[in-house]
Amino acid sequence: MEIISDIKEMQKRSYGLREKGHRIGFVPTMGFLHRGHSSLMEKAREENDALVVSIFVNPTQFGPGEDYEAYPRDVEKDQALCQKVGTDLLFSPSPSGMYPSGFGTAVSVSGITEGLCGASRPGHFDGVCTVVAKLLNIVCPHRAYFGLKDYQQFQVVRRMARDLDIDTEIVGLPTVREPDGLAMSSRNAYLTPGERKAALTLFQALQWARKMVEGGILEAGTIEERVREMILSTNGASIDYVSVVDAEELSPVKIIRDRALLALAVRLGKARLIDNIILEAGNRQSNG
Amino acid sequence: MEIISDIKEMQKRSYGLREKGHRIGFVPTMGFLHRGHSSLMEKAREENDALVVSIFVNPTQFGPGEDYEAYPRDVEKDQALCQKVGTDLLFSPSPSGMYPSGFGTAVSVSGITEGLCGASRPGHFDGVCTVVAKLLNIVCPHRAYFGLKDYQQFQVVRRMARDLDIDTEIVGLPTVREPDGLAMSSRNAYLTPGERKAALTLFQALQWARKMVEGGILEAGTIEERVREMILSTNGASIDYVSVVDAEELSPVKIIRDRALLALAVRLGKARLIDNIILEAGNRQSNG
Repeated sequence: MEIISDIKEMQKRSYGLREKGHRIGFVPTMGFLHRGHSSLMEKAREENDALVVSIFVNPTQFGPGEDYEAYPRDVEKDQALCQKVGTDLLFSPSPSGMYPSGFGTAVSVSGITEGLCGASRPGHFDGVCTVVAKLLNIVCPHRAYFGLKDYQQFQVVRRMARDLDIDTEIVGLPTVREPDGLAMSSRNAYLTPGERKAALTLFQALQWARKMVEGGILEAGTIEERVREMILSTNGASIDYVSVVDAEELSPVKIIRDRALLALAVRLGKARLIDNIILEAGNRQSNG
Repeated sequence: MEIISDIKEMQKRSYGLREKGHRIGFVPTMGFLHRGHSSLMEKAREENDALVVSIFVNPTQFGPGEDYEAYPRDVEKDQALCQKVGTDLLFSPSPSGMYPSGFGTAVSVSGITEGLCGASRPGHFDGVCTVVAKLLNIVCPHRAYFGLKDYQQFQVVRRMARDLDIDTEIVGLPTVREPDGLAMSSRNAYLTPGERKAALTLFQALQWARKMVEGGILEAGTIEERVREMILSTNGASIDYVSVVDAEELSPVKIIRDRALLALAVRLGKARLIDNIILEAGNRQSNG
């Protein structure tokens, strides 16, 4: 495994791989890697000739007062994991390399960025779109892999790549969970033991919502209300949002007909955790 | 010469050329081609293995009430010119291909887009940046060529390509002029014979400004004022802007020290014409 921090060097290597006809799989990350990331990396390893992983804690997708400074980092452990899964190139640029003096370009997606995390984290998806556009231009991958725990991010990035004719297939893979159901997240590191127990409320609420739909409750408002009640009964938990939306357009739905997404964001101590589930009328569900 | 309208097909051909190690030169245009365009195409032909020209009248860079519908078009003449200069691939996408249903992504550049045409045409440069980002992703050129008549556009596109790590060198080439000095522009087609004569005021004003600087007048305000007076003394001419700005950052300057840009936009009948000149303290000048 080779570690590259220079942007031009990374780009040169990517075009070199493309010229040799190699297919590039790419997993962009902010580091502090866990099994969610390694599931993406393993799939990318399997489906492509070369595996590129990036580690970059992107300052522009954190809002004022968010956890950019505190975001957990563990370079050595991350490198060991990348090595283990067969990463060819680990791209690890610096903030000043990515955002040089005079930087002034933004990529933004309208519509599907308005609700959910877009509403509670203004500017977040502009930061995500801009850095992902840059990374895709640098790494030139044939496929880029994103976890569906960040479902809205996946849809936003997919829309951005389609709209800008970026020649990369955006692949979304299922959320990886702890044995008790908590979605893997670097931010789980913020949780105290008590909060870690309380955090299970997210998964339990999603499961409960699935049961409601299986039981024929299809009114989004009813599901949202009961999920909110369940979460608020958990010690220390406060709600950022609980929303049932169309699974493609992420616009609010009143009745679950086709595929809907139940997405939620919950604060527990220092952590803001998100999770989601696809709800399908007719007892079917997926992405759990 | 081959004409391609399908985006995926164009992209496939571009990556095919890159995989063969061919260097791609690209000239993006809105058609109604003139000698300004052919100078770009000839340079691109000379400096690269393959020449790609695009013709696309981009609706999103026209504001409400601007001349999108009326913008002059002559497909046959354009194709003949492209053929003549040795174009390999003429890319001619449809508006619905470029902006499919649900399109919602914008690329924007701050700072250098705020003055000059950016101030008088709100949203114009967002439209330019977005379509150029798309075209660069589709054509994947090693070099893309822009005329310096649209000086701000050149600087904005260069900034955008740098900021998004687009692997394309953005090349600016000098303004091509009619024998009497009028800058070549597709929009010159709007001019009546009387307006065509009056339009010479733009070039004359730029030349006069150059003389002023050569004569030691370095105060931007004085130059702007005299240029305005000269243009306003021309029958039927009204001023959109006359501005002396820093040639790189496009921010206003008070005294011409290093390289400054005198840029102007003038309305004559249905036409809005732009032109510019680089002014350098110490009797030197260029880009005339």
